[in-house]
Amino acid sequence: MPTMLGQNQYGKAENRVVRITRDGATHHIKDLNVSVALSGAMDDVHLSGSNAHVLPTDTTKNTVYAFAKEYGIDSAEQFGIHLARWFVGSQEPIQKARIRIEEYAWGRIAASETALETASGLIGADEVNHSFVRQGAETRVTQVTYDGVRWEVVSGLKDLTVLNSTNSEFWGYAKDKYTTLREAYDRILATEVSGRWRFSWSDDAQQMPHWEKSYAETRKHMLQAFAETRSLSLQQTLYQMGSRIVDHRPEIDEVRFSLPNKHHFLVDLEPFGLSNDNEVYFAADRPYGLIEATVLRDGAEARIPVDMTNL
Amino acid sequence: MPTMLGQNQYGKAENRVVRITRDGATHHIKDLNVSVALSGAMDDVHLSGSNAHVLPTDTTKNTVYAFAKEYGIDSAEQFGIHLARWFVGSQEPIQKARIRIEEYAWGRIAASETALETASGLIGADEVNHSFVRQGAETRVTQVTYDGVRWEVVSGLKDLTVLNSTNSEFWGYAKDKYTTLREAYDRILATEVSGRWRFSWSDDAQQMPHWEKSYAETRKHMLQAFAETRSLSLQQTLYQMGSRIVDHRPEIDEVRFSLPNKHHFLVDLEPFGLSNDNEVYFAADRPYGLIEATVLRDGAEARIPVDMTNL
Amino acid sequence: MPTMLGQNQYGKAENRVVRITRDGATHHIKDLNVSVALSGAMDDVHLSGSNAHVLPTDTTKNTVYAFAKEYGIDSAEQFGIHLARWFVGSQEPIQKARIRIEEYAWGRIAASETALETASGLIGADEVNHSFVRQGAETRVTQVTYDGVRWEVVSGLKDLTVLNSTNSEFWGYAKDKYTTLREAYDRILATEVSGRWRFSWSDDAQQMPHWEKSYAETRKHMLQAFAETRSLSLQQTLYQMGSRIVDHRPEIDEVRFSLPNKHHFLVDLEPFGLSNDNEVYFAADRPYGLIEATVLRDGAEARIPVDMTNL
Amino acid sequence: MPTMLGQNQYGKAENRVVRITRDGATHHIKDLNVSVALSGAMDDVHLSGSNAHVLPTDTTKNTVYAFAKEYGIDSAEQFGIHLARWFVGSQEPIQKARIRIEEYAWGRIAASETALETASGLIGADEVNHSFVRQGAETRVTQVTYDGVRWEVVSGLKDLTVLNSTNSEFWGYAKDKYTTLREAYDRILATEVSGRWRFSWSDDAQQMPHWEKSYAETRKHMLQAFAETRSLSLQQTLYQMGSRIVDHRPEIDEVRFSLPNKHHFLVDLEPFGLSNDNEVYFAADRPYGLIEATVLRDGAEARIPVDMTNL
Repeated sequence: MPTMLGQNQYGKAENRVVRITRDGATHHIKDLNVSVALSGAMDDVHLSGSNAHVLPTDTTKNTVYAFAKEYGIDSAEQFGIHLARWFVGSQEPIQKARIRIEEYAWGRIAASETALETASGLIGADEVNHSFVRQGAETRVTQVTYDGVRWEVVSGLKDLTVLNSTNSEFWGYAKDKYTTLREAYDRILATEVSGRWRFSWSDDAQQMPHWEKSYAETRKHMLQAFAETRSLSLQQTLYQMGSRIVDHRPEIDEVRFSLPNKHHFLVDLEPFGLSNDNEVYFAADRPYGLIEATVLRDGAEARIPVDMTNL
Repeated sequence: MPTMLGQNQYGKAENRVVRITRDGATHHIKDLNVSVALSGAMDDVHLSGSNAHVLPTDTTKNTVYAFAKEYGIDSAEQFGIHLARWFVGSQEPIQKARIRIEEYAWGRIAASETALETASGLIGADEVNHSFVRQGAETRVTQVTYDGVRWEVVSGLKDLTVLNSTNSEFWGYAKDKYTTLREAYDRILATEVSGRWRFSWSDDAQQMPHWEKSYAETRKHMLQAFAETRSLSLQQTLYQMGSRIVDHRPEIDEVRFSLPNKHHFLVDLEPFGLSNDNEVYFAADRPYGLIEATVLRDGAEARIPVDMTNL
Repeated sequence: MPTMLGQNQYGKAENRVVRITRDGATHHIKDLNVSVALSGAMDDVHLSGSNAHVLPTDTTKNTVYAFAKEYGIDSAEQFGIHLARWFVGSQEPIQKARIRIEEYAWGRIAASETALETASGLIGADEVNHSFVRQGAETRVTQVTYDGVRWEVVSGLKDLTVLNSTNSEFWGYAKDKYTTLREAYDRILATEVSGRWRFSWSDDAQQMPHWEKSYAETRKHMLQAFAETRSLSLQQTLYQMGSRIVDHRPEIDEVRFSLPNKHHFLVDLEPFGLSNDNEVYFAADRPYGLIEATVLRDGAEARIPVDMTNL
Repeated sequence: MPTMLGQNQYGKAENRVVRITRDGATHHIKDLNVSVALSGAMDDVHLSGSNAHVLPTDTTKNTVYAFAKEYGIDSAEQFGIHLARWFVGSQEPIQKARIRIEEYAWGRIAASETALETASGLIGADEVNHSFVRQGAETRVTQVTYDGVRWEVVSGLKDLTVLNSTNSEFWGYAKDKYTTLREAYDRILATEVSGRWRFSWSDDAQQMPHWEKSYAETRKHMLQAFAETRSLSLQQTLYQMGSRIVDHRPEIDEVRFSLPNKHHFLVDLEPFGLSNDNEVYFAADRPYGLIEATVLRDGAEARIPVDMTNL
């Protein structure tokens, strides 16, 4: 046969698992979307259709739900590590597991005064201890990969929209015969952040990061760098966001961002006899500038793929 | 000709306008998606193609941007009222205007300690006064209709996902030969709220509601009713949400909700030798129960259309 | 209590049912998304939470699948009629049923020459008799409503994108101080058709239309009217599309369209020393003109709601 | 500074260009969504904000529209080649260009008999020569990459949904303690194909493939392999689809597919006293199996990235 099999993987994608934990009357919630991809000695199933090496994707789904009970969900990263270790360790033909997880955040609903009079919650007395509202600002993501020896954890977020209403400029650029853009000395800078950061942790012998705290701190540094950079280009802002993370979070060696430049065009109101001193903008959909780059700790290896921030 | 023209309207839909207001170094942002629909003496344009009565949709777009400068955007409702009044008052053939607006909420980005040392913001000293992050929990909506005499304002929200992890039951229902469902005495109740509420304000001579405060309070009462109702059915919860609003907000006469029952099925872990005491759930996509109803102040007229909560 | 219950309905939405019918070796496929909404004597479940009158939404789901077996699916309309009749007839408290159905079209995959040598299909010998490819041009929709006496069937389609590359003009319109648009004498006219048409059939004693043929013919007349109208406005084109249907299809009394004007702007290439004689266009997303109207058979009652074409 | 810059690229994404070509009264249409990504000597803009090496993304947008006029659009691939060659050749700091294009297909609207009497089109006399309807089955995609020396063209499609109503089995798989799946000997096999194929053409000195014919033939072979394979696993079907392409299309060296297993579950109708002999199915959304693999010509290099079929 003149053809051969290349890279391949399979598994169940988008297993939606919600885990409730009860701490007395106070409930906690974790809400995940888990996708499993397994690879290894899988030539036969492609070439002859023999499924002898194939653990059904239905089984990988069952495992996600069973593990939510057996291990609980401390963090998306830790849950992914449990799953990857199991798949690689339990089935001879499976040599590598990649677990991708999206996490949706929930907050608590504040109680009314009437409810407060009768409640005796163990959490803040002004919240209903089993009632939640889903936060929408961003989706948290992680990817855990394991080959039986080496761990790779890449976490991040997507769909986080941010905007600076001043302190952004764009001038001094290259020009050719198709250039008509006018220079800007005070523009809106807005983007929908998709970022991924890779942890240096790769070995069971190493101390594992505190995944929840790491996420909260990384997000905070990233937002602060966005807000505090006086921007001459979105590339510059991106680099500041990445290096601020690497500078402050020793557990992270590499950061990649995909930042669409969500253009806000100042509307020309002169035909109507009105000025527009950076007040009224048209928020455009398409096209948009798209700025992508990796920022690395000095000496670190670049391992986050080019398009990972576009998934 | 054996055909005739029925209800018709036209205008520019989805004008994305962002308005920045500067209060010294502190900036404020309003982010709207405005859709204009005009109707009146428009037979000719349908029958003969004569545009003599047609103000171009491009002009309605320009008006949205010009008004954002001329009037500012205090609230989506007030902005819609300015627009509707203008269209009906300025063009003889236009007899009715309907303005629909979606509003996207933004919060401020907290500053880092370094930034705080050098900043002298007029807002909270721990925030960057021109940097924003878009909140994702819900989209606020309003619809303003005006025919030259009577105003109708229907506001609301959509895409607000809420969940109670206990205090929900479903039993004692009707059964027929296609019924297989088992009764539930402790289930998750989750829904993605789409709600609309109609204000009694309809006349320029009446005192106008405080639109921003009304929204915040209405949302709060709605969430509290969801959280505090021990639910025997989603219909019961819906009615509590609606009546709580009507009870607490005298400016509102009618509320309609469309509440998809976002099923969370308890996963059967027995095949794996595991119990599942309301801990691990599968969050299903489709199909879903869909519960819709209107709650009215006693004696009020029902005016919110059946499908308005599905737009 | 100072509140009262208004219009309400409930049921299971988006039941995805695929029905395979085998005609010897030749298979046929029907692919539907069925949403059930029931109403009637439902005060108790809203006010007290008593479910005694509530047939569970889970049961309505089961009924959809059971009926796909018991009656087959000749057409979406006929299937909806079976369901509506059952719900109203079998449960005392249910006084009205509304069945909404989306239908996805499938074509057959052409066989290779190798396959033809060995196949003995009962369908065209150049097709694989059990292999399908989903057509994507439009989604067919229908809504069947029944109150035990009167039937109302409104069918239609959505997401059908059409474009005329010439024979469209727009001039002679009203102007005000916000008007900057230039007149157009040869422009692209493109829209994404959402249309609904109401059948006069309303009584079991009347002859039922041939639903499948009616759909095919109605779609054809609609497209031809779009293509063959020299357009002075999108409103004029809309009216021609509607009246062409009413003229040719006696079973249809009312048509409503929602036609977004998907603007294609001629790109200004002069800065680059190039002409643009209606050759290169920018296809814009938002904002867009939105033209909506009802066309009626003379004397017919207007019953399609204003926003039905936006669902 | 302890950080360094890794892979980076920038450009304007999602430029929507529609090109009309007039052949007498007969019009032709090409409808593309073009995304440009450029890279090279771009350290300064990231580190200092200097834009001296940055051709604005606005200029890359202008170039797309100007080239649509200057070169026309014979095929998405050829158009991408024109663009990539220009960017790399015209700006010293730009060392690599990657052009991604989506193409939307359009068909012609058939004319009515009335129209035929008066038309004298140069195309089929039964079509309106300037009226089009957008086909929805799939989106055609291509990616052209150029570094000044070597070309890489990867074309493909996405969102093409196909289904076999028989001739699919799944049994003989590995089992562990989480396995509950029952073996299937006659199931529906349905998937939404995302495929990419890489051309061997890489050098201006080589004969360029006929891009339009190659696409049509590749799509045909792929569909036939899907339809004609008696499937023991989706992996086997995938491999047949890929090897059929490589066998029949000498211009293609590598194929990668991402095939979600769109589960159609046979509904249990026994509780209602009904049999279900592969007639009534529930089409599930999530989770879904996800099968991904590369098929290569013997000896060819694997260059299509793992996640490219998920973009």
